Amino acid sequence: MSGERNTRVVLSRRPINRAAVEDDFRIEQVDVPTPGPGQVLVRTRYLSLDPYMRTRIGAAATYAAHVEPGEVMTGEVVGEVVESRHDSVSAGDTVLARSGWQLFAAMPAAEVRVVDASAVPPSWYLGALGMPGMTAYVGLLDVGRPNAGDTVLVPAAAGAVGHVAGQLAKRLGCRVIGTAGTAEKANRVKRDLGFDDCIVHRGKSLESLTEALAATCPAGIDVFFDTVGGTVHDAAMANIALGARIVIVGAVARADRLETPDVGSRWTRQLLNRRARMEGFLVLDHEHRADDFRRTMSAWLKDGSIRCLEQVADGIESAPRAFVDMLAGGNVGKQLVRVT
Amino acid sequence: MSGERNTRVVLSRRPINRAAVEDDFRIEQVDVPTPGPGQVLVRTRYLSLDPYMRTRIGAAATYAAHVEPGEVMTGEVVGEVVESRHDSVSAGDTVLARSGWQLFAAMPAAEVRVVDASAVPPSWYLGALGMPGMTAYVGLLDVGRPNAGDTVLVPAAAGAVGHVAGQLAKRLGCRVIGTAGTAEKANRVKRDLGFDDCIVHRGKSLESLTEALAATCPAGIDVFFDTVGGTVHDAAMANIALGARIVIVGAVARADRLETPDVGSRWTRQLLNRRARMEGFLVLDHEHRADDFRRTMSAWLKDGSIRCLEQVADGIESAPRAFVDMLAGGNVGKQLVRVT
Repeated sequence: MSGERNTRVVLSRRPINRAAVEDDFRIEQVDVPTPGPGQVLVRTRYLSLDPYMRTRIGAAATYAAHVEPGEVMTGEVVGEVVESRHDSVSAGDTVLARSGWQLFAAMPAAEVRVVDASAVPPSWYLGALGMPGMTAYVGLLDVGRPNAGDTVLVPAAAGAVGHVAGQLAKRLGCRVIGTAGTAEKANRVKRDLGFDDCIVHRGKSLESLTEALAATCPAGIDVFFDTVGGTVHDAAMANIALGARIVIVGAVARADRLETPDVGSRWTRQLLNRRARMEGFLVLDHEHRADDFRRTMSAWLKDGSIRCLEQVADGIESAPRAFVDMLAGGNVGKQLVRVT
Repeated sequence: MSGERNTRVVLSRRPINRAAVEDDFRIEQVDVPTPGPGQVLVRTRYLSLDPYMRTRIGAAATYAAHVEPGEVMTGEVVGEVVESRHDSVSAGDTVLARSGWQLFAAMPAAEVRVVDASAVPPSWYLGALGMPGMTAYVGLLDVGRPNAGDTVLVPAAAGAVGHVAGQLAKRLGCRVIGTAGTAEKANRVKRDLGFDDCIVHRGKSLESLTEALAATCPAGIDVFFDTVGGTVHDAAMANIALGARIVIVGAVARADRLETPDVGSRWTRQLLNRRARMEGFLVLDHEHRADDFRRTMSAWLKDGSIRCLEQVADGIESAPRAFVDMLAGGNVGKQLVRVT
């Protein structure tokens, strides 16, 4: 690679029961790997930063393996194949790969997916056309099951999943209410994405948030697409409609307290009174829905009925800062790191 | 009625954020009512006492109307028609009626259901063949959806709903674990009803209950048929299996704190990690399943594969005491009041 070095971000220590900080990571320079037989060498163009990564670096049990200190941070990238030692992939192909926070990676050809970089901006394969988009699509349609006219609540409305989920619900004829941390983000999803309303939650007590949702959703919330948990969850649960569907997609509000045990289910009476359903959703279980998702979402992105918001940081070294900022709600749309 | 008087139990005051006591009720003597055109006069033989009644006399919002102080306590009875002024019902018929805690009631003929008192003991229409049995049957089959080999947890295993739900799960080939307040009740459901195990929860901390369930359910709980809430709920949620179904049927553990607001859903991360579903269930929504329930349960009761446990108090005046005792876990099987 003409003397180029591989820059990578490794976990230096676990953040336990506290917010993640930049110093939990360190930058390393190592040799660019040489692909073995059946492998491809991928050069990262975009790195995806996602809230789920926070659980990978904590100490609490979750649905997937942890990143160990000293290991390269896990993550999905869109990259370019620099060298291929397998027939199924060619140098110059644009691929999706789970190669982590680094400039270069040697990957088995079977573990990368070639995508069409001419059809849509390639970064979209990490956003509305990728895991966050599919989480929004399948979680909302298959578990939330919104009907036209339903009131759908989407916390983190400006987030990678939320801003797609809200647009999908609008397209299905629902009334869509978001929540966001700042007035700027709330205005953005109302103005640019057609949300009917968006409540700024930051600085609001549980009581005032509960009242704000009651005022905005007078007939109750039919579908609560919950990526956040925390105070917004409690305020929403106080306002669910009869027969509500609560899709548990994430719990980022507790990202700084992952290792504190969960005790006390307070909302069971409300589930009973409203005959509501609360269900955990993990997109990894729904690979059989991927073809429908890709076909439908591609069409809707191309005809402009769904818009893809992105926030881009530059340089692999900026990944820790951008990750910490994202967890604090600093992003509008899908958070990416561009590597040039 | 040859000089007979009507004895009835009315609510004298609401128990708010405390246990219900006998003095929350008073006994009244009034005239026996005269049925009007289209009405029948019903004489109570058995009065059903059920945990849901606690929410009717509290001040917290629930899914049904409250009983007001001064009103006759609500409840279902099996009774005998003494006089009929409608063609569809005859004097001497045995009927089910929502006529409340009283000896006599004049009811519209359309609001009573004639039952076959020769086929099964008539009190069963208030238990395994009635609302509690149908709650167990439809809640377990339609919402819990147990598969053969699943581990099913049934709190309040000796209760009106629980003792039927556990037997149904056994009949479907599941491994059935109960919880009960006393060793006597635990032994009863193991010995007489075939529960595989039953944990005595009273006096156990959340930690020791969690450990006991982990030891008893090493592969996790697939179906959690939760009629109770409280500490057992938390211990169970820590032990749910991947893809678990949690049916929220009641929350009697919080009966003394109905008016304390619910805040804080702590189990959303667990629902997500285990991709589990928690759903509120109210039998009133499932009347379309009544024919299947009655046909199937009648057959299973007659062939002895399901047994019906009852606990009987005598005399309408004993209803307040029996109700308070039942809420404290004093009953084994369906709590009834026999009126002779």
